[in-house]
Amino acid sequence: MTGTQGRFLVETKSWRFAEPPDELELRCGARLGPIDVAYETYGQLAPEGDNAVLICHALSGDAHVAGKHSPDEAKPGWWDIMVGPGKPIDTDQYFVICSNIIGGCRGSTGPSSINPDTGRPYGLDFPMVTVRDMVRVQHALVSEHLGVHKLLCVIGGSFGGMQVLQWAIDYPDMVQAAVCIASSARLNTQAIAFDEVGRQAIYSDPDWNGGSYATEHPPPRGLAVARMVGHITYLSDRSMHEKFGRRLQDRSSVGYDFGPPDFQVESYLRHQGDAFVQRFDPNSYLYLTKAMDYFDLASDYGSLLEAFRGVRSNFLVLSFSGDWLFPTYQSQEIVRALHANGATVSFCEVESGYGHDVFLIEHQALHRLIGDFLANCQDRIRREEASARTER
Amino acid sequence: MTGTQGRFLVETKSWRFAEPPDELELRCGARLGPIDVAYETYGQLAPEGDNAVLICHALSGDAHVAGKHSPDEAKPGWWDIMVGPGKPIDTDQYFVICSNIIGGCRGSTGPSSINPDTGRPYGLDFPMVTVRDMVRVQHALVSEHLGVHKLLCVIGGSFGGMQVLQWAIDYPDMVQAAVCIASSARLNTQAIAFDEVGRQAIYSDPDWNGGSYATEHPPPRGLAVARMVGHITYLSDRSMHEKFGRRLQDRSSVGYDFGPPDFQVESYLRHQGDAFVQRFDPNSYLYLTKAMDYFDLASDYGSLLEAFRGVRSNFLVLSFSGDWLFPTYQSQEIVRALHANGATVSFCEVESGYGHDVFLIEHQALHRLIGDFLANCQDRIRREEASARTER
Repeated sequence: MTGTQGRFLVETKSWRFAEPPDELELRCGARLGPIDVAYETYGQLAPEGDNAVLICHALSGDAHVAGKHSPDEAKPGWWDIMVGPGKPIDTDQYFVICSNIIGGCRGSTGPSSINPDTGRPYGLDFPMVTVRDMVRVQHALVSEHLGVHKLLCVIGGSFGGMQVLQWAIDYPDMVQAAVCIASSARLNTQAIAFDEVGRQAIYSDPDWNGGSYATEHPPPRGLAVARMVGHITYLSDRSMHEKFGRRLQDRSSVGYDFGPPDFQVESYLRHQGDAFVQRFDPNSYLYLTKAMDYFDLASDYGSLLEAFRGVRSNFLVLSFSGDWLFPTYQSQEIVRALHANGATVSFCEVESGYGHDVFLIEHQALHRLIGDFLANCQDRIRREEASARTER
Repeated sequence: MTGTQGRFLVETKSWRFAEPPDELELRCGARLGPIDVAYETYGQLAPEGDNAVLICHALSGDAHVAGKHSPDEAKPGWWDIMVGPGKPIDTDQYFVICSNIIGGCRGSTGPSSINPDTGRPYGLDFPMVTVRDMVRVQHALVSEHLGVHKLLCVIGGSFGGMQVLQWAIDYPDMVQAAVCIASSARLNTQAIAFDEVGRQAIYSDPDWNGGSYATEHPPPRGLAVARMVGHITYLSDRSMHEKFGRRLQDRSSVGYDFGPPDFQVESYLRHQGDAFVQRFDPNSYLYLTKAMDYFDLASDYGSLLEAFRGVRSNFLVLSFSGDWLFPTYQSQEIVRALHANGATVSFCEVESGYGHDVFLIEHQALHRLIGDFLANCQDRIRREEASARTER
């Protein structure tokens, strides 16, 4: 990692886990191996090992959280506004880790990886992976490969927030603090419905071919439509109105045809669809939306109260007032169940009309909340450690 | 029309308008003819001609409002709960008219009709039709063909409500009362975005073939996805939760596969998509969503205030509290602009968590509002007529 004018260079590394015959037994009962994990790290692990922060990415994210892979990379990592020297997740202070989730398509093993049994991409022969499986693999990366045995914090938004909750449940002694942003203990019906529409768009692309296609030429059309639907749900009525209104796209009057877009919002959606298919695999989109739909802590543990029975992390739960995909009531459900288990929880509904995607944009109040929470957690833990040392 | 155990039989009729060379000049500048109009009527026109009610259908509706075409028709017309003997729009009292909008695919001329210049279906050679064009054709049907010169009321929900507004603007002396339900003087950005996603789903269906396909075998896949997106927007988070929750579809645990639907809501959406493609034409879906996107009274007339300058109808404007596709603020914009023009307007936000589609389901308060409004309008008009006759 080399500083370059406030930016820094970083590389994605890969670690192989679960080499056969030591395959990972998945939640669905199938076994998966080998499993490659793409990850990035930023900053240095403190000698005391007490400054590690794990970031869990959302549906379309990857291990490349911040910085650039090369000086001429067009855009920095997906959370560069939040992660870096002097930023809320300050890489001068913290050792930051992020890995691509399994089932994804950005370096970790997923449906576009080669199936060792056939020598061809898995396609739909890839087993279904759940949030618990993803977290299990992250845990192996962090503890076995990186030698980190305490996480100061696990943090993530949206689908990443689901991973945060699973981490706090599965590894209570390891996760000291947890930041769960714009997420839910289970997707609501409407969100499942939007996911299903995205999947149906992919299924209905004849080039999808039941999931069997050349990995170098994934079928773009269905995935583009799925992404457009997604983008509407990530914004809000108000933010779309403010951003585009009914303004026309490079024209002074409507075209009365089906050619170039009439409205700016149409152009925006088309662009988002086209850009997404350059970097994402349709089968991964199917698997990850299914993992999101299946995530249901109340169902897995009998009740949400029971799910959080053993958690020991200090929680920060955040929602956004304009988020209708993961509405505030879902964060409040998490907070109530945590409180009922005596957990230490801070909750804030951050004011923003922007929609679900607020955590990916500049938002000072949000940045301050997260930066302060992290710093306070570290201070408290270090004070407790020092006091424990004195007593010994 | 024959009464059968509370139900009645009705037939769709057809009228040819704008026989060449008397083509209709459309808003977009193109000319269209011949134009066939499919319509149904219910009840009898009073000798005084003062009991005619025109119903304007929404995006996927048709002329078949109520009753059945044959005793064994599976379902009655789309607004059978509202229209019929003894119902709020009481066919014992009113002469009810509904026609399929041009651009549609349910009997009126649209992109699946034969282009007289080529002998083949128009496809994308069909000219763009706007709400104003649709209303112009309805007006010809009502006044030229049916001989109705006053409309006691024009009523419609959603896209039908846009037609109601256009009627009140274009034919102020003819429209005595207007009921505009869950509609808008212009679509908001988010609604345009959803329409565009639906269109992109259709474009991306390779069998769509640029709009050229055999009318008997319209490409189903893109249209099904478009309909699924639409259905989510017609319901609400709450209503989907109440209707389906996270309940599984004919199974006791999730399938961990991409086979049959896991959740009931997925099954519901698939069914809605499959059912829709049996009765709707993909090109019509493109044209009608474009007409909806283009509808913008403020843009057409300089401002909404100016648009309503000449209206003389007595208005009932209704919105639904749980409708996020045509939110209440859009109805309030209409109400404010009408008030500012001194129009007589009743406005009510009907309490319902159901979503946009409330007007298509049983809702007693809504039915009473509409029934009472119609009856009161007719009473008032008849009293005024009687008093005018006395004075003469």
